Amino acid sequence: MSLEPVLARLDAELPAATERLLDLLRIPSVSTDPANKADCERAADWLVADLRSIGVAAEKRPTTGHPMVVGHVEGDGPHLLFYGHYDVQPVDPIDLWDRDPFDPQVQDTAAGPVIRGRGSSDDKGQLMTFVEACRAWKAEYGSLPCSITFFFEGEEESGSPSLIPFMKENADELKADIALICDTGLFDSTTPAIITMLRGMLGEELTIKAASRDLHSGMYGGVAANPIRVLSGIIAGLHDETGRVTVPGFYDGVPEMSNEIIAQWDDLKFDHTAFLNSVGLSEPSGETGRRPLEMIWSRPTCEVNGIWGGYTGDGFKTVLPADAHAKISFRLVGTQDPHKIRENFRAHVSAQLPPDVEVEFRGHGASPASQMSIEDPAFDKARQALSDEWPLPAAYVGCGGSIPIAGYFKSILGMDAMLVGFGKDDDQIHSPNEKYDVDSFHKGMRSWARILDALTR
Amino acid sequence: MSLEPVLARLDAELPAATERLLDLLRIPSVSTDPANKADCERAADWLVADLRSIGVAAEKRPTTGHPMVVGHVEGDGPHLLFYGHYDVQPVDPIDLWDRDPFDPQVQDTAAGPVIRGRGSSDDKGQLMTFVEACRAWKAEYGSLPCSITFFFEGEEESGSPSLIPFMKENADELKADIALICDTGLFDSTTPAIITMLRGMLGEELTIKAASRDLHSGMYGGVAANPIRVLSGIIAGLHDETGRVTVPGFYDGVPEMSNEIIAQWDDLKFDHTAFLNSVGLSEPSGETGRRPLEMIWSRPTCEVNGIWGGYTGDGFKTVLPADAHAKISFRLVGTQDPHKIRENFRAHVSAQLPPDVEVEFRGHGASPASQMSIEDPAFDKARQALSDEWPLPAAYVGCGGSIPIAGYFKSILGMDAMLVGFGKDDDQIHSPNEKYDVDSFHKGMRSWARILDALTR
Repeated sequence: MSLEPVLARLDAELPAATERLLDLLRIPSVSTDPANKADCERAADWLVADLRSIGVAAEKRPTTGHPMVVGHVEGDGPHLLFYGHYDVQPVDPIDLWDRDPFDPQVQDTAAGPVIRGRGSSDDKGQLMTFVEACRAWKAEYGSLPCSITFFFEGEEESGSPSLIPFMKENADELKADIALICDTGLFDSTTPAIITMLRGMLGEELTIKAASRDLHSGMYGGVAANPIRVLSGIIAGLHDETGRVTVPGFYDGVPEMSNEIIAQWDDLKFDHTAFLNSVGLSEPSGETGRRPLEMIWSRPTCEVNGIWGGYTGDGFKTVLPADAHAKISFRLVGTQDPHKIRENFRAHVSAQLPPDVEVEFRGHGASPASQMSIEDPAFDKARQALSDEWPLPAAYVGCGGSIPIAGYFKSILGMDAMLVGFGKDDDQIHSPNEKYDVDSFHKGMRSWARILDALTR
Repeated sequence: MSLEPVLARLDAELPAATERLLDLLRIPSVSTDPANKADCERAADWLVADLRSIGVAAEKRPTTGHPMVVGHVEGDGPHLLFYGHYDVQPVDPIDLWDRDPFDPQVQDTAAGPVIRGRGSSDDKGQLMTFVEACRAWKAEYGSLPCSITFFFEGEEESGSPSLIPFMKENADELKADIALICDTGLFDSTTPAIITMLRGMLGEELTIKAASRDLHSGMYGGVAANPIRVLSGIIAGLHDETGRVTVPGFYDGVPEMSNEIIAQWDDLKFDHTAFLNSVGLSEPSGETGRRPLEMIWSRPTCEVNGIWGGYTGDGFKTVLPADAHAKISFRLVGTQDPHKIRENFRAHVSAQLPPDVEVEFRGHGASPASQMSIEDPAFDKARQALSDEWPLPAAYVGCGGSIPIAGYFKSILGMDAMLVGFGKDDDQIHSPNEKYDVDSFHKGMRSWARILDALTR
């Protein structure tokens, strides 16, 4: 079977493929918000119907949270599993969006046309690049080039609580030769990338409590412990003056990169200035003496993702609140143990509390970092296929984000994962005005067609 | 004219007076929320009608914000001005209320019956104690005992932006021999109090900004400045390890209390333990070596009343927000200059900002502390009248709260203010489940009848 007709069909079908993606983007499948539960179901239904339309035996599979979508198609050659997620991030702050996040649109921009809307890049647009490549293959040759299992989840943006139980219960059904994951980015707009290192993630939510009720600051101010001040002190103390995290034992298992790896990364000529300037910044924050690319790919972090307490409305209210809250996440590398760090973090915070002040912790996701086995020849084949599609050769890179499923594929199903994606740094994922370049979408489909061809030769 | 029939009438009329107060409490006159603008108008209308029903020439007077209510009645003897406010605090967190804050009710408690609802103590219930005393006097004798100006504002809980302009424009109309203010508390449930020292207030709202948009913590975490961390560091640094405020020049104009005053306060046998225990605390926070009563009445403070930034909803979102916010207030004493402190605070914060981080300030109310001229014989007359009503003699006390109008009566209208109120520490003003003891309401009316009698003899 020749690849060229499939690529030609993907070019011709781009408008129709775009319409299909817009249709999926209209479903507000925000997994963290209970109000969107039915929307998550609708997104799963949409995917089941779409997979069936290209001959995949797909079905919605219940979990205690949002459903999985699993589909199979039999063929010759290797057995691939493709993973993506149909859930999306919340849209707040909604007033910073230029349009309804769930009324997506193709917009012309100076840098070319983009598909604007929540989930366009993370991850519905990316997921559909693979589905569209399969659709074109099926249309051209009547079948897919090999055995493929499609595996879509709906809880990736909320810590994937159902994922591990589901993978364990359905391990035999889900096992394949290699997992393909499309939830990452290009290295830059001309250089595709295959991720070989992924940071892990640990989420913690704190509630600091002092008095049994909100107090009047005229009556109790200066005398009663103020949970906002206690929380601020704890957060301010989580980093030392060199930007290192102060939680005891935090750096256990954090490797220094070899000179060889650092040299490879230097070869990529990453534009640190442009990276910062693109979001209105000029100087790297973080650990003294380390460059941004090194920090993002190979250093662990501790960040505060949300904070709230007291009166936050219009005007002023002189209240001392009874409690204050923060959401804190850690990005992990090497062999850092998320469970040990959670334990150390909680002990570290608890040890700092003044009299009468209590803390409650609520754990969110915990996943270790991953390192891919790039000795598998599939990696070099895919790298060549990507290099054929894009202006510059594909790079093996690290990734600052956390895609815990890559680790689960290895630990639960015993298979390697290959992460290839077409997002760009300016896609504004997790932010207002998320977009996906039409070019990412189009060349993404073509890239998957090339990879399918390369892996089945 | 004898006082006894007036007191007897107040006893008999208590149920009717309570119904009137409940009626006023049903109006959700939250002045800080633009959504309640019409409700503030309704509360003013209600008061105009009620004053007219007892023969006061009252009217609603427009301002650029919520209206004032001004009423006059002519008589012999001294000319008194009575001040109160008809606006109330916001009700959040609404889920901690046991009932609708604006569906007030008389409830039986172990400590006696209470009137439960937002504004019951602060300040509608207090305000009505004086009106009810006047109503009984009028019913008994056909007129009030002296010239009285009634002056109610609707912006006290939102910094009184219209108050100074209104007082200046209507200075001749508002001038009287002394101002009476009912917006404070008893010293304890058996000891009434006249406030002789009031702390001032300064409000500031900060917005810390870094990147031009929200960022993904996987991509930028550890590299981009995080406004929540910057804000937390600023807040954590506002106090030193002895609890003193670190803003340069903050303690300029803060007097040490004389041994005589400290001895007077000691005589009051304030139960510091009970004060803290009543709100679930056991140890004083704040300046090392100073006792709660001293801190509340005579020491300046800096407190954080609200903080927010990033993702604060259900679940988790690994965002680095573009901005973070806090509402910070200072309580001032002695001759601390609020404008100078505002300036120093802003310079102090600005000097701490790391590269790429900006701050925006929004000023809220600024008022200096007040000291009353208790040489005026009216103070001793009122003290005696209160001592006749309550189990224990009335005390001259300080007040931790800020009632800027007391200072304005002096600086703009040249008259002293006498602050007498019947609130209790457990009234939960500014908090969920605010209440006013029926006993406070009842003995409050009787106290004002006695004070009117004493001041006009």
